[in-house]
Amino acid sequence: MLGDFTYCNPTRLHFGKNAMSALTEELAKYGQTVQLIYGGGSIKRNGIYDQVIAALEAAGKTVVEDAGVMPNPTADKLREGVKIARERNVDFLLAVGGGSCADYAKAVSVSMNCDDDPWEKYFARFEEPTCEIIPVGVVLTMAGTGSEMNGGSVITNHEQNLKIGHVFSTDVAPKFAIMNPEFTYSLPKYQMVAGIFDIMNHITEQYFSGTDDNTSDYIMEGLMRGLVKASRAAVANPEDYEARSNIMWTAAWALNTFVGCGKAQDWEVHMLGQAVSAVTDATHGMTLAAVALPYYRYIMDAGLPKFARFAQNVWGIDAAGKADEQLAAAGLDAMEAWMREIGCVMNLAELGCDESMLETLADATFVMEGGYRKLTREEIIAIFRESL
Amino acid sequence: MLGDFTYCNPTRLHFGKNAMSALTEELAKYGQTVQLIYGGGSIKRNGIYDQVIAALEAAGKTVVEDAGVMPNPTADKLREGVKIARERNVDFLLAVGGGSCADYAKAVSVSMNCDDDPWEKYFARFEEPTCEIIPVGVVLTMAGTGSEMNGGSVITNHEQNLKIGHVFSTDVAPKFAIMNPEFTYSLPKYQMVAGIFDIMNHITEQYFSGTDDNTSDYIMEGLMRGLVKASRAAVANPEDYEARSNIMWTAAWALNTFVGCGKAQDWEVHMLGQAVSAVTDATHGMTLAAVALPYYRYIMDAGLPKFARFAQNVWGIDAAGKADEQLAAAGLDAMEAWMREIGCVMNLAELGCDESMLETLADATFVMEGGYRKLTREEIIAIFRESL
Repeated sequence: MLGDFTYCNPTRLHFGKNAMSALTEELAKYGQTVQLIYGGGSIKRNGIYDQVIAALEAAGKTVVEDAGVMPNPTADKLREGVKIARERNVDFLLAVGGGSCADYAKAVSVSMNCDDDPWEKYFARFEEPTCEIIPVGVVLTMAGTGSEMNGGSVITNHEQNLKIGHVFSTDVAPKFAIMNPEFTYSLPKYQMVAGIFDIMNHITEQYFSGTDDNTSDYIMEGLMRGLVKASRAAVANPEDYEARSNIMWTAAWALNTFVGCGKAQDWEVHMLGQAVSAVTDATHGMTLAAVALPYYRYIMDAGLPKFARFAQNVWGIDAAGKADEQLAAAGLDAMEAWMREIGCVMNLAELGCDESMLETLADATFVMEGGYRKLTREEIIAIFRESL
Repeated sequence: MLGDFTYCNPTRLHFGKNAMSALTEELAKYGQTVQLIYGGGSIKRNGIYDQVIAALEAAGKTVVEDAGVMPNPTADKLREGVKIARERNVDFLLAVGGGSCADYAKAVSVSMNCDDDPWEKYFARFEEPTCEIIPVGVVLTMAGTGSEMNGGSVITNHEQNLKIGHVFSTDVAPKFAIMNPEFTYSLPKYQMVAGIFDIMNHITEQYFSGTDDNTSDYIMEGLMRGLVKASRAAVANPEDYEARSNIMWTAAWALNTFVGCGKAQDWEVHMLGQAVSAVTDATHGMTLAAVALPYYRYIMDAGLPKFARFAQNVWGIDAAGKADEQLAAAGLDAMEAWMREIGCVMNLAELGCDESMLETLADATFVMEGGYRKLTREEIIAIFRESL
């Protein structure tokens, strides 16, 4: 723990098959009018919507519907959500869905009482909230982003080819999250696998940086070993409760600031992936899967001891007789084999990208400085080309 | 994550070499009169007391001294502390020390506004607080108990030969903790090692139970690997900041409810060790060290797959050619070698126990039901005898 830091995470997590039974009591702590935020309506087909409405009714709330939040929530949709919140003077924002709904709810939360345009203020200019924040709660239906237990919010502006995340303070994080792993059973395999790789990449973004021997690294190795095992069980049987619950729990802890405590962090894979989503609207986790290996193979030499450690401690590769270069490469090969096994998208062509888009993708990519390398524009283009 | 649970931990942790700089701002959030709780005065020799007083003065607080908290804080001392709190009508309790001071502060916190005798209400009858709780803060000077980030409090009644812990809700947990690893440098090696084994045993108490494949188990394996490495470095050089900081961070997370989420838990080693402290007043961590191996070797057959996993995933023992029994035994042998290497007390004789005390120790031992075995009185006596 070489770096100084402050850690505080007050989100209350209700986890398990009976987690929903806590919703009415949680809602009772907040005001009368609840903006109910959800996506394309799958929650109406799988019964979750009815359970949420029952809890809202039991708590005597006035419900304001706000449906249609898309997988990469847009600045335009955000402006609509803020308009609804203001017109109905809502007291609480309840997001029912995955990270998109939670991210969107947090963006509405910091914007309802603010005169500025939300995209400009928070995502173009990275300003902090200067107005009253509306509390947010989450009923989680997809594991991956970790948005249920952090202050992060990612919004996409397709006109500007930009997908930008703002990590707000814990004041903006959900007050509570209802986490029933069974709610993720009906998710299509593509979405489940995208979530799993998103989790893995949240961990590797924080793992592949620094040269210290940090407790956070040991915790992340444990989380990655558990995630790999659970992912295989979940692909074999999507209704394996143990596997789905381990994945859901790992998702929350991979991105609630905990595993990054005291450490340098990279996040360049997310910058590359978010550029792809900004341009193509592709599923977040799959954009990360398409670019991660070309990126890590490119920077491997600059962080060789950590990549060698990754091979041993996460993938169980025997170091005997191997130089660090061989060991490090074998670790990334093992990650590739696992990604193919569970069904990750392995290239950008499958997500609709081609050679003609490389400059546009590079324009949309932010360059981070916390990892083993700081990329030039030429290197970014080369990595995108390698990912095609 | 097979069991349902709720997780919430709002304690704000200020960690690192400059952590103390946050104390004045934290104190400013609370009332005027601060009860300053500490132990035998070592903080006056190493300069920490002066830093705390400076922060209290900068925050303009009225300070009420409450020194002399002993390593196993007693019911009598607790009654004195409650008397001070009432007489001076304090608004905040600031514990400067290790787990004893923090545990004691929490016990005062739930008792100041309560008419009942604190030992009888909370530790003999296990009642919950029914009165206003006074907020607590901690400046940590010893890593081990994890009391800085949980609602637990352990109080000893030597007249009754009882040392009893009560795990209160998060309302009783410290509002903040100042965690500067350098503050632990001046601790005698015996105390440092006792703290390290306390941390290890907090983890094994939660690890050695259940047959599920829980994310919490993977996290604990990572924490144990990191702890073993850091402990060796800290013994070699007590001023190895990286090692001492990793140990301090691991201590907080080993007992803030996180690593036990979704899992069955044992805690019998703590019951055996607390009986020893109740009778002999021996150092907590060393009482655990003296009884842990005889206990684990006794129950090993009942949880064989987990002990075999422990050998591989924590101690890196190669499973090839070994039956589970051999593997499991080799894991405990590796733990024993590590305990001897860092300087743990390996038997009860060294803590002042002898054959004549076995019945008294058994009388003082609570029997838990969450582990691989539920002990009979005869078995408890046999384990204590094996520990002599």
